[in-house]
Amino acid sequence: MHIDIQLKSETDNSYTVNIGELDRLNVDAKVAIVTNPKVGGLHLEYLLSRLSAKEVYVITVEDGEGFKTLSTAEKILNNLFEHKFNRSSVLIALGGGVIGDMTGFAASIYQRGIGFIQIPTTLLAQVDASVGGKTGVNNAYGKNLIGAFHQPLAVHADPHFLSTLPKREYGAGIAEIVKMAVCFDKDFFEWLESADLYDTEVIKEAIARSVKTKAMVVSQDEKEKGIRAALNYGHTFGHVIENETGYTEFLHGETVAIGMVMANEVASRLGLMKTDEAMRIKKLLLKYALPVTYGIVNVHSFYEAFFLDKKSLDSNITFIIPQHIGGVELRDNISKDIIIDVLKTFAETRSV
Amino acid sequence: MHIDIQLKSETDNSYTVNIGELDRLNVDAKVAIVTNPKVGGLHLEYLLSRLSAKEVYVITVEDGEGFKTLSTAEKILNNLFEHKFNRSSVLIALGGGVIGDMTGFAASIYQRGIGFIQIPTTLLAQVDASVGGKTGVNNAYGKNLIGAFHQPLAVHADPHFLSTLPKREYGAGIAEIVKMAVCFDKDFFEWLESADLYDTEVIKEAIARSVKTKAMVVSQDEKEKGIRAALNYGHTFGHVIENETGYTEFLHGETVAIGMVMANEVASRLGLMKTDEAMRIKKLLLKYALPVTYGIVNVHSFYEAFFLDKKSLDSNITFIIPQHIGGVELRDNISKDIIIDVLKTFAETRSV
Repeated sequence: MHIDIQLKSETDNSYTVNIGELDRLNVDAKVAIVTNPKVGGLHLEYLLSRLSAKEVYVITVEDGEGFKTLSTAEKILNNLFEHKFNRSSVLIALGGGVIGDMTGFAASIYQRGIGFIQIPTTLLAQVDASVGGKTGVNNAYGKNLIGAFHQPLAVHADPHFLSTLPKREYGAGIAEIVKMAVCFDKDFFEWLESADLYDTEVIKEAIARSVKTKAMVVSQDEKEKGIRAALNYGHTFGHVIENETGYTEFLHGETVAIGMVMANEVASRLGLMKTDEAMRIKKLLLKYALPVTYGIVNVHSFYEAFFLDKKSLDSNITFIIPQHIGGVELRDNISKDIIIDVLKTFAETRSV
Repeated sequence: MHIDIQLKSETDNSYTVNIGELDRLNVDAKVAIVTNPKVGGLHLEYLLSRLSAKEVYVITVEDGEGFKTLSTAEKILNNLFEHKFNRSSVLIALGGGVIGDMTGFAASIYQRGIGFIQIPTTLLAQVDASVGGKTGVNNAYGKNLIGAFHQPLAVHADPHFLSTLPKREYGAGIAEIVKMAVCFDKDFFEWLESADLYDTEVIKEAIARSVKTKAMVVSQDEKEKGIRAALNYGHTFGHVIENETGYTEFLHGETVAIGMVMANEVASRLGLMKTDEAMRIKKLLLKYALPVTYGIVNVHSFYEAFFLDKKSLDSNITFIIPQHIGGVELRDNISKDIIIDVLKTFAETRSV
């Protein structure tokens, strides 16, 4: 005997990314803003002066990737219980990727899911992390290993916040913009080559084009069963560099820049991307002072580290390899020899 | 400037509840069975002899509601990381509601969600808890306050497991069957009145009818934005009793039985359910040795406790009140006086 459970399609998960100065934010609910001391100190007043809600609480968590843990998420939840937040209350993430990922995750498991709004304050979060509903925290086994897909109610990408962003963090955001263009949009890449991304109007345009690209990808593949994985271009290598350097030497976007250069090198070896295209990508990254190399100490332990990464818990590692500017492919059958060969070219560049 | 993110409807969340002897269970994935020492001791071999999968691990967690916590869920997750479970791996919950809720929750947040199969071993879990995708854990603030909606891949309700179930637990399951009938199905209720639920074929039929009812409700309202809340009939009062008695004196289903009698009393005061219908419900509960009263020590603290419950974090408490056998309504505007009056009738019945 069996009984079929027919579920209606989910309630509409669609939402809007607003790019531009935040004018007013009206939320007809009890609200908690989650932020860290640094961002809160710079931008909390700006947000509060524009926000109207039934009640507003502020939850401040410690700053940094090291505090993006289940334990910090639990503290956020306990704060919400303490103040009797209910199922129609709303969280607002005011900060970069760490705040956004963790706030979204807390929202996803508070009483089986409440709404949240992303107000990304870094360029990286504005162009990438805040859009698409990936939420999560780190643990001893790796980054973002505990999490959920939970789409925000809205995203507000306000260039105002970028004025206080250190130049290196700005560059790290540009690495993800370049990633979007290389993966999906040759015109966008060529536009980037001639653009001055330090100009406020120009960066707004770049954010918009990145978000449009990401929206296209996420709409087709919300839960990363296919095409969305392409957005990990540069990340497979980048994650190993982040791990090896203990998240201190490089910013996330910087490791993505190096990782893209490494992936391009693999692409060249496979007879895919042409050398001059790889050079144009490197040149664009260098224009914004992004690192494009990394001295690998031990190519074999670097290779082994791929298997510790979440995306590689399977025996096969999926590499995102560009065919050309504007098109990538997912390859899970690249021989160890080719990868080791490429890694060796980076070991050689190490200056000791 | 704004950009709309159009998400496709979720991948199909539909699944099948199989009622009957488990013949074979083929899972084309790496599998972890989550169970507790008691259930594992009784039924693990039975399951293993029928299960075929790529690899099988067994994760044993401590028994009881007190261990249904974020910390136990984290132990399950760490076990999965330790054994390199990936995004296509599958969890199997072998146990009652505690195991099912916690395993489902762990599955919902492991690498942003993996599949799980419910193999409920108690009558209560077979007729109610295992169906509908509510997952979660308890914390200091209350029951199931941290969780997610995460539908199982399949549910296998095998009456074989019921043969080892203590009679009191069997009765607790019957309370939830009665709940389904009173809420939604008068014919079912009348069938129950003349049925012998200790008979194996009869209980199979009762499980099937309960699951059909629940499936109908969940299909219409997966995320409890409306009609699904009706399934909390008896639970608003029941949760307070559970809290007051520290989860030791009564089983969950037993507090639901008492809670339904209390809700019926409220219904009578409001001129809704007729006294003779309330009597028929009480009689059916008594037939299976379920408790139908509870000596309230302090009616005012009992009333205050409603507001500590998750469903009541709002200022209004929603009571599920039967109009008649086969139909309930949600009421969030019942005056405190009426509730206190009803509670007093239970205080009076206290034998000291």
